[in-house]
Amino acid sequence: MPPLSPVTRPLFPDLLSLRTACQTLPSPDTTSQQAISDRDATLTKPPGSLGDLESLAAWLGAWQHRASPKLDHVVSLVFAGNHGVVAQGVSPWPQDVTAQMVLNFQHGGAAINQLARVAEAELKVVAVHNLEPTADFTHQAAMTDSAFLDAVSVGYASVPDNCDLLCLGEMGIGNTTAAAALAAALFGGEASLWAGKGTGLDDAGVRHKAQVIESALKHHAALLSDPLAIAQALGGYELAAMLGATLAARHKHIPVLLDGFVCTAAVAPLAKLAPQALAHTWLSHCSAEAGHARLAQALSLKPLLALGLRLGETSGATLAVPIIRAALACHTGMATFQQAAVSERA
Amino acid sequence: MPPLSPVTRPLFPDLLSLRTACQTLPSPDTTSQQAISDRDATLTKPPGSLGDLESLAAWLGAWQHRASPKLDHVVSLVFAGNHGVVAQGVSPWPQDVTAQMVLNFQHGGAAINQLARVAEAELKVVAVHNLEPTADFTHQAAMTDSAFLDAVSVGYASVPDNCDLLCLGEMGIGNTTAAAALAAALFGGEASLWAGKGTGLDDAGVRHKAQVIESALKHHAALLSDPLAIAQALGGYELAAMLGATLAARHKHIPVLLDGFVCTAAVAPLAKLAPQALAHTWLSHCSAEAGHARLAQALSLKPLLALGLRLGETSGATLAVPIIRAALACHTGMATFQQAAVSERA
Repeated sequence: MPPLSPVTRPLFPDLLSLRTACQTLPSPDTTSQQAISDRDATLTKPPGSLGDLESLAAWLGAWQHRASPKLDHVVSLVFAGNHGVVAQGVSPWPQDVTAQMVLNFQHGGAAINQLARVAEAELKVVAVHNLEPTADFTHQAAMTDSAFLDAVSVGYASVPDNCDLLCLGEMGIGNTTAAAALAAALFGGEASLWAGKGTGLDDAGVRHKAQVIESALKHHAALLSDPLAIAQALGGYELAAMLGATLAARHKHIPVLLDGFVCTAAVAPLAKLAPQALAHTWLSHCSAEAGHARLAQALSLKPLLALGLRLGETSGATLAVPIIRAALACHTGMATFQQAAVSERA
Repeated sequence: MPPLSPVTRPLFPDLLSLRTACQTLPSPDTTSQQAISDRDATLTKPPGSLGDLESLAAWLGAWQHRASPKLDHVVSLVFAGNHGVVAQGVSPWPQDVTAQMVLNFQHGGAAINQLARVAEAELKVVAVHNLEPTADFTHQAAMTDSAFLDAVSVGYASVPDNCDLLCLGEMGIGNTTAAAALAAALFGGEASLWAGKGTGLDDAGVRHKAQVIESALKHHAALLSDPLAIAQALGGYELAAMLGATLAARHKHIPVLLDGFVCTAAVAPLAKLAPQALAHTWLSHCSAEAGHARLAQALSLKPLLALGLRLGETSGATLAVPIIRAALACHTGMATFQQAAVSERA
């Protein structure tokens, strides 16, 4: 297990440098993508019969910039953070659980440890800003400029250069409230459309959570036209880090599997800043959290799995890794019609 | 690779013995199932947050009859067979492709070879009745009594006793026509509701296929009240073998992952003979073949994946194996709240 908080000089010293990086994005490698589609057409199966597996192989190559994609080094990255808004009673769990779960990750006892083993993924846990909570965003911005930029920079720097596929997710008591606030600010609609049960609120708890979000949206009404300002005012440290990691992956030619509701909300500002900003990502699953299907639709992201997960911890993204391995194994290992002497269709 | 056609004395010498085996089925082990649910409630996650993974772990235990389920020996079983009805022009591919693909399976070049490797599953291919085609069921029963019972017996005998999870599927040019005929006969509705593109028919081809099925349904109208007679008259050797294998798995306490449209249609007669006959199975995926979603609904089977596959070869079932491994890994490997000293909810 690597150190929890990688020490790093801020990659983005000011908001302008971050905004520029968000709007200057590499394109897919369409030559590799075409080579993969061309080979696919020669393999011993009816054309199209492997469905999404065919698209996944082409997606890997397009964003790895490789005609022969690899999955030698898959990383599951979990960013943990704490939230001042828990003072408003938005979670049934105590804030200590964030730190306790980080220890559980380190000792191998959490769901993500088991899932990473099955996926043959390296698990990397980053406790952003040493789990200091953000400010309560019902009264002030969750983060100062520098704390926000530091968290984005930590996320960016946490992505290894030699990674072939990045799974991205989080842990943080209270963070479905931040995610719902972010989604409401970016895509509109009443808070009740985006607020869900999180880790297990009852109906009254969900109504209260929506009211907390509504009051935060009112407080920050003046800045709701700027996606990065929204991320800073209503997000959280682990959300900012996920934004930074997704940006890093794009610049480093690494495809990304996004996890659930919080992860999707965290990276949504990127799509508002540049229309194709999430093209190198695949949404791993549709979570049971109320707002996730709506958010996926707003971002035109089609989830790979829908298994009723609502855990976070990068669990859904890591669970999807063997599907990606299967897609690549078929593309790489199958015989062509010619090699196998199989007749083609009449 | 084991021999293609296991030599076996017929386990079911007459239809009555088969019918009796179909209607005398072991129940799930509810004690193990409850023990698994009880442990699940102690693990370091919000209750229910692993969604279907929690249900899958309990399902494994219930049907393995083990409070500590295992996945040491997973078998992907592919039954291959040929169909007289291809004389009616229902497939764009020549019948030789069935045998050519069996060779491709043996040489490791097919999709299922790659998927079995990713799933760490043993691949077993059985060419039923040495790929002799059935009769053309538009004019007569596809199979004689003895050929049908032999094929069911071959399927039954192909399931190893020491298997922890069985993935079940097929290969056979023309077999989506047999499957659609079976589904229409068992669940009613016009043939056009069940006939799909198969391996790649155009719209005119699909219409012709539906007409062929309608004429077969008329020819066999007198026996459409008997599920086993339907399987014999309208099915195929590999379909009969899948029925036998699913029955064997139930009697041997082995959970089953069903593959796509043909596999689901093949085992549907079991559900007509005994309401809970498919309770030990989980539908691995919803195929892109037109009738599959409707058939799954008619059988109250909820598919685990929906990735647009339409290949057969046990590909969808085998692709789902890592999801089952992940479910078991979480159940077995996670720490409890007490072990990890994580606070429970307020």
